[in-house]
Amino acid sequence: METISVSTDDKQGFYDITDRVQSAVNASGVIEGICLVFCPHTTAGVTLNENWDKSVQHDLAVGLNEISPPRSEYRHGEGNSPAHLKSSLMGAAQVVPIDAGDLVLGRWQGIYICEFDGPRTRKIHVRVLEG
Amino acid sequence: METISVSTDDKQGFYDITDRVQSAVNASGVIEGICLVFCPHTTAGVTLNENWDKSVQHDLAVGLNEISPPRSEYRHGEGNSPAHLKSSLMGAAQVVPIDAGDLVLGRWQGIYICEFDGPRTRKIHVRVLEG
Amino acid sequence: METISVSTDDKQGFYDITDRVQSAVNASGVIEGICLVFCPHTTAGVTLNENWDKSVQHDLAVGLNEISPPRSEYRHGEGNSPAHLKSSLMGAAQVVPIDAGDLVLGRWQGIYICEFDGPRTRKIHVRVLEG
Repeated sequence: METISVSTDDKQGFYDITDRVQSAVNASGVIEGICLVFCPHTTAGVTLNENWDKSVQHDLAVGLNEISPPRSEYRHGEGNSPAHLKSSLMGAAQVVPIDAGDLVLGRWQGIYICEFDGPRTRKIHVRVLEG
Repeated sequence: METISVSTDDKQGFYDITDRVQSAVNASGVIEGICLVFCPHTTAGVTLNENWDKSVQHDLAVGLNEISPPRSEYRHGEGNSPAHLKSSLMGAAQVVPIDAGDLVLGRWQGIYICEFDGPRTRKIHVRVLEG
Repeated sequence: METISVSTDDKQGFYDITDRVQSAVNASGVIEGICLVFCPHTTAGVTLNENWDKSVQHDLAVGLNEISPPRSEYRHGEGNSPAHLKSSLMGAAQVVPIDAGDLVLGRWQGIYICEFDGPRTRKIHVRVLEG
């Protein structure tokens, strides 16, 4: 298992880790299989989305803020409940097929760590399985 | 790895691909393992939900339109940011256990490709692992 | 494959099954690999989130009720369409890496079954793969 470290620089943002996940796949030597990308944090997540126009990432952030704003009924003392909900909405784990040694992603599809309560240093675990 | 092709016929809709995923499991010969169902598109997704009453699919579409409407702050030029957000909310990957050669789904549970920016021809990759 | 049974005691709630999933990993004897946690229900789900302050679970429930309220346009006769949507938003499957025989979770991260249409008896399938 390989672990990627990402230093986020804002309260909320999306960071493209596709190349680093592909490097972990290369290091594993696996040609056919699957790749698990796992976020061990509860105010961050992992998602797949467009990697071409950066305004898509902007718009995802805007949309998630509308879906998960601060709410007066929230009780969690740290005040980051909107981030916890966004984390579960995006998900902690993504699984991508590997074919001929490459992640099988769409032409405009990248793998993103989603920061919802930064800036922080985040870890992402990458586990590659043959089969 | 097998690839399923689905021609969607509307802007938004849910298409049951359970039988085709099961066929890919059959073709793999795997008896015990897992099945990865992966969507390489960023304005579509994959989800598991009820396959008995079609009004559930209608209601999922209604609810997602309320959660992810067009917003004036969106910048992405193609105008399909609501679809990009829905894609990340549903997810690009689902993993289903295989037991005795069959997908282990609940009695009313089907595998759906979710179209959010159609009509288009969409691909779904199916990767089966033994274990 | 092991199956965990959980009796939920309310309409909506989050139930920590981390220890029971770890027991299934132990029983499998797998040291390095992945663990699939799968929910075969369409008005429940599985998610990973904070296991330390129980008010996070309260706040997730509050936030999901705001995101997926009853809507007059819903057609599904059982009246539980908000639960079906929450199920797809949280997801039916989570995958967690295994290292040195242990689930690789963050310090405050637990595995939860999410009940959205209880109380009921729910099943969760756990499949462990080596690799």
